[in-house]
Amino acid sequence: MRHYDRVALIGLGLIASSMAHAIRDNGLAGEIVGHAKSAETRATALEIGLVDRVCDTAAEAVAGADLVVLCVPVGAMDAIAAEIAPHLAPGATVTDVGSVKQAVVKAVAPHMPAHVQFIPGHPLAGTEHSGPRSGFATLFVNRWWLLTPLEGNDPAAVARLRGMIEAMGANVEEMDLVHHDLVLAVTSHTPHLIAYTMVGVADHMRRVTHEEVIKYSASGFRDFTRIAASDPTMWRDVFLTNKEAVLDVLGRFAEELFVLQRAIRMGDGDMLFDYFTRTRAIRRGIIEAGQDTSAPDFGRGAPVPPPKPETE
Amino acid sequence: MRHYDRVALIGLGLIASSMAHAIRDNGLAGEIVGHAKSAETRATALEIGLVDRVCDTAAEAVAGADLVVLCVPVGAMDAIAAEIAPHLAPGATVTDVGSVKQAVVKAVAPHMPAHVQFIPGHPLAGTEHSGPRSGFATLFVNRWWLLTPLEGNDPAAVARLRGMIEAMGANVEEMDLVHHDLVLAVTSHTPHLIAYTMVGVADHMRRVTHEEVIKYSASGFRDFTRIAASDPTMWRDVFLTNKEAVLDVLGRFAEELFVLQRAIRMGDGDMLFDYFTRTRAIRRGIIEAGQDTSAPDFGRGAPVPPPKPETE
Repeated sequence: MRHYDRVALIGLGLIASSMAHAIRDNGLAGEIVGHAKSAETRATALEIGLVDRVCDTAAEAVAGADLVVLCVPVGAMDAIAAEIAPHLAPGATVTDVGSVKQAVVKAVAPHMPAHVQFIPGHPLAGTEHSGPRSGFATLFVNRWWLLTPLEGNDPAAVARLRGMIEAMGANVEEMDLVHHDLVLAVTSHTPHLIAYTMVGVADHMRRVTHEEVIKYSASGFRDFTRIAASDPTMWRDVFLTNKEAVLDVLGRFAEELFVLQRAIRMGDGDMLFDYFTRTRAIRRGIIEAGQDTSAPDFGRGAPVPPPKPETE
Repeated sequence: MRHYDRVALIGLGLIASSMAHAIRDNGLAGEIVGHAKSAETRATALEIGLVDRVCDTAAEAVAGADLVVLCVPVGAMDAIAAEIAPHLAPGATVTDVGSVKQAVVKAVAPHMPAHVQFIPGHPLAGTEHSGPRSGFATLFVNRWWLLTPLEGNDPAAVARLRGMIEAMGANVEEMDLVHHDLVLAVTSHTPHLIAYTMVGVADHMRRVTHEEVIKYSASGFRDFTRIAASDPTMWRDVFLTNKEAVLDVLGRFAEELFVLQRAIRMGDGDMLFDYFTRTRAIRRGIIEAGQDTSAPDFGRGAPVPPPKPETE
C-alpha cells in the first residue's frame, strides 16, 4: 500500500538505505529520492540502484516530496534543515531518525516553515555497519520506532507517518522528548560509551598484546567490540548532544562500579552473587518482552546478512 | 576416533553437557560417565540421556576413568579435588575448564597423587545459559581452548588431551598460568563485570521504569543484558579468584572512562571521534582474525539453538 507519493531520504547511511529497501520491497511510496553530502556515497547509491533518483543537493531531493526523512548525524541537522526549508512542499511531513531528540528539535524546528509538519522520530534499530551498502529491508521488523510529536502536530500527519513506519515492520510508540533522551541514555548511549572505553583499555594494556586481545576475545569482550565498532560520527554527536542525561547515568555507573570493585577487593562473594542473580532476572524480562531471542549464540549470530526477522 | 576409554565429567553444566554431546557425536570416548552435586541435575542428565552413566558421587564417577574433567565452579575445585584424589586411576589425566587458572592450580594440584597428570585448561566458549540441558555439540567449534600445562606434565599426556579437544572442533593453544589470568581479565572478566554494573544501574534508575528499560533495550544495552545473564556462581568465583588482575584492569577502565566523561562534559568532539575511530579498528581486527562474523545482527543472532559453527 502506498503511504506517500514521494519520499526524500536525506543522508544515505544504514538507516536510510534500510528504509529505501523496506519502502521499495513493500511498495510504500510512489517514488524514493535520495541525497547524500558525499559524492562517493551518491555514486554508490546510484550504482546499487538504492533509490529511484539520486540528487546532488538536498534542496533538489526534497522538492515535491510529501515525506522528507533526515538521516544525517545529529550534528548536521541544523545546517541541513536550513538548506531544505525554502524548498519543502506545502503539507509535507518532515521527520528524522536521530538518536537524541531534544537537540534535533532545537536544531531543526526553528527552520521549519508553518506549512510543513515536523514530527521527530527515532528507530531503535542498528548494526555496527554504516553506509549505503549496509541497509537491508528487515532492519526495522519487530523493532521499536519512537515518535516524539511536537505540540501543534496534526494528528492526521502523525497517523500517516506512523502507518508507513508500521508497514516497514516496526512497532511505534509516542514519547515525550525529554523522557526519550533519558531512556536512551540508559539503554543505549551509556552502554555504548562503556563498550568504547573497555575496548580502549584493552588496546592500551602493555602486558597483553594486541594480537592476544583480538585472538582470545571470546564471550564478553567480543560483544563490546561489536558495539564499539558503530559509526564514530553518529556517536560523537550523540554524546555531545545528550550530554546531561549521559553524564547523569555515567555518574551512577561509576558509583555502582566502585561498589562492585570494593566487593571484589574485600572478597564479598555473597554481595557479588546476589548482584549477578538480579541482573540475570532483568535479562529474562527482556527475553519475555520479545526484544531478543534466548538462542545461546552469545552475539555470534548468523553468518550472512540479512538476519531473519525475529518472529517469536 | 576414540581418544580415551572412559571420560568422567564432574559437574554437568553448560560446558560438561556440551562436551558430552561433542564426545558422543564424534565417538571420542568408549564411555562417558557424569556426576553432579545436585540430585536434580543428576535426574535431568539421566532423563535426557546426557551421559552413559550418572553417578551419585564424584568418587564413583572417576573410578577407572582415563580422563577426568572438572567442570565445577572455581570455588568448588578444592573440595572436589580432595574428594576424587584417592579414587583416581593410575595414569589418568585430570583437567578442568575453569575460567581462572592460578586459583584452580592452587586448589587442585596439592591433592593430586603422583600417578596422575593434572593439566589445567580453559575453553573460551560459552552462552548465557547454564545447566545440563544447555549444552550442544558445536559449542567449541572454531573456539579457543587454552591449556596451561604444569612443570612436570608428561608431553604425551598433554598431546593426547589436546587431540581430544581438537576433535571436538576447538583450537588449542598453550599459555602460562599467570599470563592466562591477565589476558582473560582484559578480554572476558572485566567486560562481564561492567555489563553486570550497567544492567544494575538501569535497574536502579527511578525516572526510567523497569518496563521501559526492558522494552527499549535495542542495540547496546541488550548485548549487556546477554552478558549479564551468565551463571552467577561461576562469575562470583571468577572475580573472587582472579581478584588482582581484575582490579588492575578495572582501575585502568575507571581512568579511561573519566577521560571520556570529561571530553563529553567539555564538548571535545574531536577527542571522542578519534577514540571511537580507534576502537572501530580493533573490531575490524577481530573480524579479520576470524573470531566473529561481520553479519549486521548486533547480537540478535539466529532464532534457534544450536548455532552453526562459523566457517569463514
